[in-house]
Amino acid sequence: MHEFELIKNYFQKLSKKSPSALNLNDDVFFDKKNRLVVSVDTYVEGNHFINFKKPDLVIKKIIRSSISDLICKGVKPKYYFISGSGNKKSFSKSNLSKISKSLNQEQKKYKIFLSGGDTVFSNKLSFTVTSIGFTNNIVYRNKAKINDDIYVSGNLGDSYLGLLSLKNKIKLNHRLKKYFTNQYFMPNIQLKLADQINKFANCSIDISDGLLADLDKMINNQELSYNLSLKDIPISNNLKKVLGLKKLSKINYISNGDDYQVLFTASKNKSRIIKKISYNCRVKLTKIGSIQSQVKKSSILDDNNSQITLKNKGYFHNF
Amino acid sequence: MHEFELIKNYFQKLSKKSPSALNLNDDVFFDKKNRLVVSVDTYVEGNHFINFKKPDLVIKKIIRSSISDLICKGVKPKYYFISGSGNKKSFSKSNLSKISKSLNQEQKKYKIFLSGGDTVFSNKLSFTVTSIGFTNNIVYRNKAKINDDIYVSGNLGDSYLGLLSLKNKIKLNHRLKKYFTNQYFMPNIQLKLADQINKFANCSIDISDGLLADLDKMINNQELSYNLSLKDIPISNNLKKVLGLKKLSKINYISNGDDYQVLFTASKNKSRIIKKISYNCRVKLTKIGSIQSQVKKSSILDDNNSQITLKNKGYFHNF
Repeated sequence: MHEFELIKNYFQKLSKKSPSALNLNDDVFFDKKNRLVVSVDTYVEGNHFINFKKPDLVIKKIIRSSISDLICKGVKPKYYFISGSGNKKSFSKSNLSKISKSLNQEQKKYKIFLSGGDTVFSNKLSFTVTSIGFTNNIVYRNKAKINDDIYVSGNLGDSYLGLLSLKNKIKLNHRLKKYFTNQYFMPNIQLKLADQINKFANCSIDISDGLLADLDKMINNQELSYNLSLKDIPISNNLKKVLGLKKLSKINYISNGDDYQVLFTASKNKSRIIKKISYNCRVKLTKIGSIQSQVKKSSILDDNNSQITLKNKGYFHNF
Repeated sequence: MHEFELIKNYFQKLSKKSPSALNLNDDVFFDKKNRLVVSVDTYVEGNHFINFKKPDLVIKKIIRSSISDLICKGVKPKYYFISGSGNKKSFSKSNLSKISKSLNQEQKKYKIFLSGGDTVFSNKLSFTVTSIGFTNNIVYRNKAKINDDIYVSGNLGDSYLGLLSLKNKIKLNHRLKKYFTNQYFMPNIQLKLADQINKFANCSIDISDGLLADLDKMINNQELSYNLSLKDIPISNNLKKVLGLKKLSKINYISNGDDYQVLFTASKNKSRIIKKISYNCRVKLTKIGSIQSQVKKSSILDDNNSQITLKNKGYFHNF
């Protein structure tokens, strides 16, 4: 059963009683009265990260993944709490020192503060990260309008190629391997958007599970569909090079998740302000498609304007 | 290495950079400007709870343990987040239904709201609970004054006897077994104190690890010691009966943790208001000793005013 089905079936009714919960239908919790935004996520070895051979990098990945939930909603993260459960080896002095150093670097980079958490013994390694920020308003899901443009920040797909490389499922030269694995462990999350996105976005989500899966989630309560233009989906020059060299198809490499870029929709009349903010903040924002009425089926068009058929829309946390 | 040593060595320096953290030296995080109080705790099967044969009861125990951290600081819990990692069996439909029902009961009893969380796959069962409340001020640790009285709420030791009974380390008749195991799973936490404790307490903590271990923690940054009177430490009539029948020594049964009662110190001139509030709120508050200068050694006096020597001060989350 998918995670969100589990939650839906058993727990949504509990959160409905809350005066300010988003009915567990968003990645963050927002209490408007207290200006509080909270995200809680658990990361398990072998599922959300491959192993703990590089604790410094794994820690960066999970911290960025956690604060990305806030950033994509237009909220600057301020505090984080990290709870680790693992064995003696995972929390050896050497690893703890690496974890601590990594956290320190992330704190400086993103101006966040470790505010608590604990460490407990377990034979299975996992981390739960709670991130907190404060704001007067957030960008929600499910507020897209017909004819909205669909945008994405940064580039997609690099992280997935990093994962394939780490799993030895693709062979890359040293320089490219390093580039892609760094993108996997240290996604280029867009802190600068946190202050800006509420100026133009109607709804938003961060891409953790994959472009298509998250696009579906972003509008899953709305009677809408989308169409995307494959050629407009932004990828790095390095990814372009690899796809070219190895004759791989772009569509299979841009919707596998772990990108932690911001996906949002905006009214067409916002295109000028979006360009301006993109330029001023030096954050790449690319229009990749548009929202349409559900009368039309969702589609992705390739370079010849032919529809692409997909079997799998991304990654799910399966039980 | 003890949990707090781990934290101290590697992570305290990170939290010092925060404008409002308590340097990880308290059970909760308090951001005065935003009135925000947060507690994050992880509970692992086989460590913090024996097993998951009674999911409904385990869930009640961990929720109460979590919100107890806030209550003892004078904060009403408002929101909670629960992240479970476990296998298919732990999160079967039947178990999820029991968990959901239990959470619903706890929400009603303590006026708290499920606000998020997630479920991930792991072969080891654990839960991380984040509890949040709002307040203008909290009762801290390490603010005890010389000659303060030491008080405790409710009764101690029942929960430990419940644990012994669950582990078949003590034989009890059906009625008593049920009473003590209920106290273990559903500790009688004192929500009513949350609004009152800042009227009289100089410092406070909740008893999770054991009376003596937590008393030490409450004043561990102060050059103070304590003396306790064993006969004054409150226990239930049921525990009195069992200790009498089995000729067990009280001191071995009142400092083993899982009590989730509030331990606090108060100036002597607060004794009248404490009595009044205790009566009005129907919360038992018992004076069990006093704080003294470190010139005197901490001590526990038995019924004959002889000092008791202890080998172990309670339970630690060991790695």
